[in-house]
Amino acid sequence: MAFERAFDVAKKISDSAIHRLSLYVRILEEWEREGRDTTSSEELAERGGTTAAQVRKDLSLFGSFGKRGLGYSVGELADHIRSILGLGRTWRVALVGAGRIGTALLEYRGFRERGFDIVAVYDADPAKVGGCVGERTVRDVAGLEEGIRAEGVEIVVLAVPGEAVQPIVDLVVRAGVRGILNFAPLKPRVPEGVTVRDVNLVMELEALSFALSQDGPDA
Amino acid sequence: MAFERAFDVAKKISDSAIHRLSLYVRILEEWEREGRDTTSSEELAERGGTTAAQVRKDLSLFGSFGKRGLGYSVGELADHIRSILGLGRTWRVALVGAGRIGTALLEYRGFRERGFDIVAVYDADPAKVGGCVGERTVRDVAGLEEGIRAEGVEIVVLAVPGEAVQPIVDLVVRAGVRGILNFAPLKPRVPEGVTVRDVNLVMELEALSFALSQDGPDA
Repeated sequence: MAFERAFDVAKKISDSAIHRLSLYVRILEEWEREGRDTTSSEELAERGGTTAAQVRKDLSLFGSFGKRGLGYSVGELADHIRSILGLGRTWRVALVGAGRIGTALLEYRGFRERGFDIVAVYDADPAKVGGCVGERTVRDVAGLEEGIRAEGVEIVVLAVPGEAVQPIVDLVVRAGVRGILNFAPLKPRVPEGVTVRDVNLVMELEALSFALSQDGPDA
Repeated sequence: MAFERAFDVAKKISDSAIHRLSLYVRILEEWEREGRDTTSSEELAERGGTTAAQVRKDLSLFGSFGKRGLGYSVGELADHIRSILGLGRTWRVALVGAGRIGTALLEYRGFRERGFDIVAVYDADPAKVGGCVGERTVRDVAGLEEGIRAEGVEIVVLAVPGEAVQPIVDLVVRAGVRGILNFAPLKPRVPEGVTVRDVNLVMELEALSFALSQDGPDA
């Protein structure tokens, strides 16, 4: 069964393959909204900026799909990739850090659409604790470990200053969290089996600045 | 001179080397705030999760620096890396998309700290045009091309829905923009010489969801 096979091969799937699957599902969802029924690896490749061979290879990592010569059903392929990406379920998420980035994230529709249910918000600032962000009351970060255990939190979204990252990561990992989405500018150290994804705006700004600087002072 | 050499080798520097430089500068700035004077490649490596040999190799890409056996001056090394990353100057930036992500970005301190000066905000929604976000009035995206030329905009930050990305990118590239920070979930196509950096929250969420899903149904 394709699904069991997916579990087997999971560890060998590259980050760039996952990112492409993510891109394919977004393209397919766009086409679903436009009412398109079928597509081909050629069309997906063209829209996604890759090759048809790459699309077929990415999809074949998770079992065979589609009928030779008939292409793919847009809806079925979208469902299939969503299930590969674990998007069929809801994840219990705690947000740590109720600053600007944190509160903007709370309103970000993409979280809910991808099954990320933010069940609690924590901050270390006494001026923020007890206040409201969106529909949630900000809790004292001192209760984070207990809160994670009590509420079965699986993912922590970290939007705290760099120096606060490692102690909080150590604590949430101890409490059983195995997935961290990190917005802080420093990469935390985690034990094996814990996944950290970084969304590092400052690094992207600096990479952009670097690239533009290379064209010389007249740039 | 180290600076000229930096221009020469620029095209060969990998993305991961740039990301490490970005990380080093952040660590050094943390140490500057703590009042530390000197450091070594060993200390930087330990704090940054890499090896001393890697630190020395990354720094040597941009000319020699530091004195053998004496380590580095924290302040001078930070300055040196900042100049490599093009952080010594100000970039004129236009934000396109005054939705939730866009307005959160306007308040993001990191932009100004890295020299990104948001000089104008554009949106396509008539309900938003003419309104205020922060201290800026939202302009009609119909005037984007003219505005970019008139105000010498060098970088565009894109926070628009996926389907709007490519037409806007084509337009801003035509107007002379060579750097794009893209928050939209689809990767735009650009001609050579234009740099796009993606900050793709949805893809990171999906990569996290995928990683957690692989531990099986009891996860």
